[in-house]
Amino acid sequence: MPDQSKHSPFEDIRQIISAFPSVDDHAVEAVRKRNQQLTKPPGSMGRLEWLAEWLAGWQGKAQPSIDRPLVAVFAGSHGVAERGVSAYPSEVNHQMLANFAAGGAAINQICTAYGLGFKVFDLAIDMPTKDFVEEPAMDEKACVATMAFGMEALAGETDVLAIGELGIGNTTSAAAIFAALYGGKPESWVGRGTGVDDAGFARKVAAVEAGLKRHEALLYDPLEVLRCLGGREIAAMAGAIIAARVQRIPVVIDGYVATAAAAVLHEIDSSALDHCVAGHMSAEGNHRDVLERLNKIPLLALGLHLGEGTGAAMAMGVIKAAVQMHNGMATFDQAGVSGATSEHTH
Amino acid sequence: MPDQSKHSPFEDIRQIISAFPSVDDHAVEAVRKRNQQLTKPPGSMGRLEWLAEWLAGWQGKAQPSIDRPLVAVFAGSHGVAERGVSAYPSEVNHQMLANFAAGGAAINQICTAYGLGFKVFDLAIDMPTKDFVEEPAMDEKACVATMAFGMEALAGETDVLAIGELGIGNTTSAAAIFAALYGGKPESWVGRGTGVDDAGFARKVAAVEAGLKRHEALLYDPLEVLRCLGGREIAAMAGAIIAARVQRIPVVIDGYVATAAAAVLHEIDSSALDHCVAGHMSAEGNHRDVLERLNKIPLLALGLHLGEGTGAAMAMGVIKAAVQMHNGMATFDQAGVSGATSEHTH
Repeated sequence: MPDQSKHSPFEDIRQIISAFPSVDDHAVEAVRKRNQQLTKPPGSMGRLEWLAEWLAGWQGKAQPSIDRPLVAVFAGSHGVAERGVSAYPSEVNHQMLANFAAGGAAINQICTAYGLGFKVFDLAIDMPTKDFVEEPAMDEKACVATMAFGMEALAGETDVLAIGELGIGNTTSAAAIFAALYGGKPESWVGRGTGVDDAGFARKVAAVEAGLKRHEALLYDPLEVLRCLGGREIAAMAGAIIAARVQRIPVVIDGYVATAAAAVLHEIDSSALDHCVAGHMSAEGNHRDVLERLNKIPLLALGLHLGEGTGAAMAMGVIKAAVQMHNGMATFDQAGVSGATSEHTH
Repeated sequence: MPDQSKHSPFEDIRQIISAFPSVDDHAVEAVRKRNQQLTKPPGSMGRLEWLAEWLAGWQGKAQPSIDRPLVAVFAGSHGVAERGVSAYPSEVNHQMLANFAAGGAAINQICTAYGLGFKVFDLAIDMPTKDFVEEPAMDEKACVATMAFGMEALAGETDVLAIGELGIGNTTSAAAIFAALYGGKPESWVGRGTGVDDAGFARKVAAVEAGLKRHEALLYDPLEVLRCLGGREIAAMAGAIIAARVQRIPVVIDGYVATAAAAVLHEIDSSALDHCVAGHMSAEGNHRDVLERLNKIPLLALGLHLGEGTGAAMAMGVIKAAVQMHNGMATFDQAGVSGATSEHTH
């Protein structure tokens, strides 16, 4: 009989999340005050003003900065991919890692355009997770070890982090996670991924349905959802989001699959993603619904559905400009610009 | 009695618009073909793929390029501003031009962030247009001369142009233009501009109502709308949009006031803006409604309502990344990446 008193590694994760630091109110206040002094009508830079507040608040300093922006892409391989749920064969995982290394992928070009650092983490891409229709994708030990890998991957590497992924089959995994966390019909969470046809779409729906049924008894626990239906790149992204919070690194979340990692944490604690922004609204699956549940307004909505961190990296371009503006603009006093008329009448 | 046979300068404008060049279909086709060969699922870069097509099609070359991106800001001064329709005094026009020159404004910082050129055109800022409540803002000669100035300002300067403006009082002018072009209640077009209070808002609505009534007989003609209710910066932006089309320079339109210039041209010819994208959806007035009428989906929606070309410049950041991606990515063949499975089964 198993020892019921034995320490569960999942408990360590829950413990870390329950002790998450909160936003630095003084930093937010300092940014808000400066925003009022900059040479523009109050609030006229919209979400760009908010981004400066958000960044400073989570960096814990009165002046936000982006000196080492990093796009971290986690790559995993999925047992469920063997069910024909993707338009591409799993060998593409390997080929795309080589393409990343050669600088030929979309994400390489966006990083070049915006001056972003780029790191790829290969999560045993030669060893697919188990097919979640048959058995849990990972055992608890492997799941937590992969989360820990994601946590450690970023130490000291960056001051604002964009997370993304690569993994043939992983939009099926993300759909299964959302269906498990939020209920509803599996087909309402399944998208076309890399561009599957109707038969491929039906296979995705069938896989999600079967996976939910197989693991039904465990899915009340978000970490079990991650373990049973997820993949290594999803577990690692969850770990990266956790570690970033502890290290006061603001996070930009990419699309459907990256958001699945985030959603697991949000289900554990609804404030767990307060240090994160949604980089964009993906065209994959039902990302709009997910973002609403997470209470996140995406920065961009450009119809992307590629993964690789591309949407988050595009959003990094916006965030960099927001910080440049906040730090570089003149104040009314500095520029000798008259304030609003109402101020003069006081 | 006036000579009815005399040549109207407005006829020259209409003539140029009627002879506008159309998109280069071969260039669009070349980009579309390459988009299919790049290492990503077809269509997965969403609007970024479309941007490359749009840019190449209007530049008239198979490979789009951005070597000299330019943000052009046109500054004008408005007689109607004396009616207390802005939270700021008109002297801010001068002060902001100095702030632009010193690099302290929001637009300076965005241009720095994205490596964009920046030029400001001072359209007789010491000489306000007439108060449109009393008389036409400009006479026909001045209006056309200002459009011509806008046309010539950009010759040989850029390969993709963002247009923006500065002018205390000009959101009132823009609201009047939209009300004249599209009908509806004046208050449905009036926004808070730089942040007017309820009394200021009421003054804006009253000014628009009075202006529409004053010039009612002429407002069937979009160029008369521009002349009677517009401002010099609005006329110059209309000229810049026209010249860019003739010179095959794609244009990124900024917010509410810049869109008023564009709307005048669209009312003359519904294809006149095909070489333009809407950089963003402004939070000013009823920009959403205007963009729908122009059949433009804005690239960004960040709640900006500052003007200065800031929304268009933010969108330039997106467009630069789209071009970088299109030109820099590897093809499936180059990278040795397997295509979609369906291709293998042919």
